[in-house]
Parts: sequence; structure tokens; C-alpha cells
Amino acid sequence: MTTSADTAAARRGRPGYDRRQVLDVAVTLFNEQGYDATSVADLAERLGLSKSALYHHFASKEELLAIALETALSRLEAVLDGALALDASAADRLEHVIRGAVAVLTAELPSVTLLLRLRGNSAVEVAALERRRLFDQRVTGLVRSAQSEGRLRADIDAGVATRLIFGMVNSVVEWYRPDGRVDPALLAEDVLTVALSGLLPRDDHG
Amino acid sequence: MTTSADTAAARRGRPGYDRRQVLDVAVTLFNEQGYDATSVADLAERLGLSKSALYHHFASKEELLAIALETALSRLEAVLDGALALDASAADRLEHVIRGAVAVLTAELPSVTLLLRLRGNSAVEVAALERRRLFDQRVTGLVRSAQSEGRLRADIDAGVATRLIFGMVNSVVEWYRPDGRVDPALLAEDVLTVALSGLLPRDDHG
Repeated sequence: MTTSADTAAARRGRPGYDRRQVLDVAVTLFNEQGYDATSVADLAERLGLSKSALYHHFASKEELLAIALETALSRLEAVLDGALALDASAADRLEHVIRGAVAVLTAELPSVTLLLRLRGNSAVEVAALERRRLFDQRVTGLVRSAQSEGRLRADIDAGVATRLIFGMVNSVVEWYRPDGRVDPALLAEDVLTVALSGLLPRDDHG
Repeated sequence: MTTSADTAAARRGRPGYDRRQVLDVAVTLFNEQGYDATSVADLAERLGLSKSALYHHFASKEELLAIALETALSRLEAVLDGALALDASAADRLEHVIRGAVAVLTAELPSVTLLLRLRGNSAVEVAALERRRLFDQRVTGLVRSAQSEGRLRADIDAGVATRLIFGMVNSVVEWYRPDGRVDPALLAEDVLTVALSGLLPRDDHG
């Protein structure tokens, strides 16, 4: 619950955070320093809170990690579920997934960055990596179906093709800045263009 | 200097490492746990050495990091220098860079993985990130020249195109395994195929 006094305090940069704000600061710090290297004391210091005030919001560092990863994974999974619910070819579903994944990455940059940098050193991380693996597997199935449809070239292994596509998509967390000059919707189109048509001029193909 | 007694001890998994072996174990541990989260004590424990025995080989954790990053960066820079020394078009030079970068990543997987996961929390890391930035800038110059030559499509920003190409190339550290079923030379060709021609069948182009 946020009171107007809390809000005023937050505006002054003083204690009085809500759960969402604590989470945002925690994810930023995890991305800067690495999750393993960040202590609850580091987080309390960044927030200007005592450790006990911080424990008022969250039971543990791991709970903060779990919530951030849930945000990233559930949004990515929703994109894939939406694509599979379409009455469309595998190739068109894949296009929907690529466009949607770029949108999730640019909209949820901090939590997806955290997801993509996980090392798997705790149960929460291992579970998240397993969900990522399942996501990748389902996308690989789409790529394979699009190859069977004749809509994608079949001379590249479906697993390798999926990893290269997501290499482009996931690279977005390394260099996209929300306040930068790259428009997220145009970026999704650029990723699709390279993935499907490549960088050669049109008349160099076929 | 490695004596036959040292070698026998190393074979038994006991102390008696040379500098190269200590470095390899350190880089593996940095990649598993994160550089910031790895202490000299962790490294000594993994090696089964005392901290003072470890300091016999290296002055500091940072020296290990610096040597690993130098390996990765100097090999990548050598690929780019080699491409620029070719009597060839910008497009052909770029192809040489992409093929060579994939070869460096698969051959020097641990040190390049470390380079790509840097956060910039120390002077050594900041210097390495600056060399990476210069490398990217020089490759972007090549992409821009290839666009001017008419050899690459010009409707995608050269900086974005470079980042997407290296998104594919760099993703290799996330999923390529030296003992796996993917051949590194074929992988380089697959990256080139997607980057230049895309995943559509040939007759869907132009």
C-alpha cells in the first residue's frame, strides 16, 4: 500500500518504496553486479533502507529474483502461446513469435536481461533455465514445421536456425537503450528482415 | 617450467599446475560463478592449492582476468586486421570477419565467453569493453562500406545490422559445445547464410 507521504518521500529519493520500486532497483543492481555478487546489504544500501525495512517488502534476495524471472518468462511464453493459437502457417506463427519476443525484450529489458544472464547457481535459476529450454524447444518445433511447409530453407538445422534467430533477438538486451534512437517496432522488422531475407540486396538472391 | 613430477601430480588431479592450467581453471570458474563473485580462495579451493601456492603463479585475480581478455581480444582483432589487409571488397572483407570471428569463438570459447559477459566493474574490464567497442565500430565501418558498394542492402542501419550479425556470432558462446554435434566450420557457413541470404528458400527472394 502506498500513501501520499510514501510517494512524496520516493520523489525526494528517500525511503518509502513500494514493492514494485524495490524490485526495479534490485533487478538493476543484479544486472550491474551479477546476482551472486549482490548481497541484501548492497541492495539496502542502494535503496537507502535498513535491511529490516527491506525484509518488510521481500522475504529474501531469491524472492526478488524469482519475481523478476517470472515476469520475463511469462511474457515470452504468452507470445508463443498466442502464436500457436493463431489459425496460421508455422512460418507465420514464427514471424509472430519473433516480432513479439523483440517487443517483450524492449518493454521488459531489465528482467529479460537478468533471465538471459543466469548461470544456474540456485534452484530458482535452474527452474528458470528449464523454462527457457522448453521455450527454445517449442520454437525449434515451429522452425522445423516451417521447413516442412517449404516456407523456410531446410539446409540449415532447425536447432541451429532457432539459436541464430534468438541470437539476434537476445542481443537486443546488450545494446538497446529505451531512450536511444532505435525504434522498437522498426527493430523487430529489421530482425525479421535479416532472419528471413538476409542482408544481401534483393536482386542478389535466387 | 613443468617437471615430469609436476605432470604426474597434475594427472593425479593434485597440485602441480603450470600457469596455463591455472588460467584455464580460473576462466572456467569465472564463467560459472561470475568474476565478481569468485574469490582467490574459491579458485585455490577448486585447484586444491593454498592461496600462497596460487600467488606463486599469478599476482592477483585481476591478472588472470587481464590475460584471458587479452587472448580473446587479440585473436578477434587479428581477424579484423587480416580482413582489412585483404585486397578485396568491403563485402568480402566482412565475410572474412564473420567466418573468422566464429572460428575464434569456437576455438577460444572460455575466454571469449568471459569477454562477452563483462560488466565493467573494474579498470581491466572497462579497458576490455573499450576495445570491444572499437572492434564493433570498425566492423560497422565495413558494413557501411559494403552498403555503399551496393553489396549489402542499405535499408537497415549499418550499426543495427552489425549488432544483429554479432548477435548471431556471439550467441555461439551460449550454446556451442566443443564436444557437441555442431561442426564449427559448418556453423560459420550457417551464420553467413542467415546473415547474407536469410532463412527463406532461395525462390522466395527478389
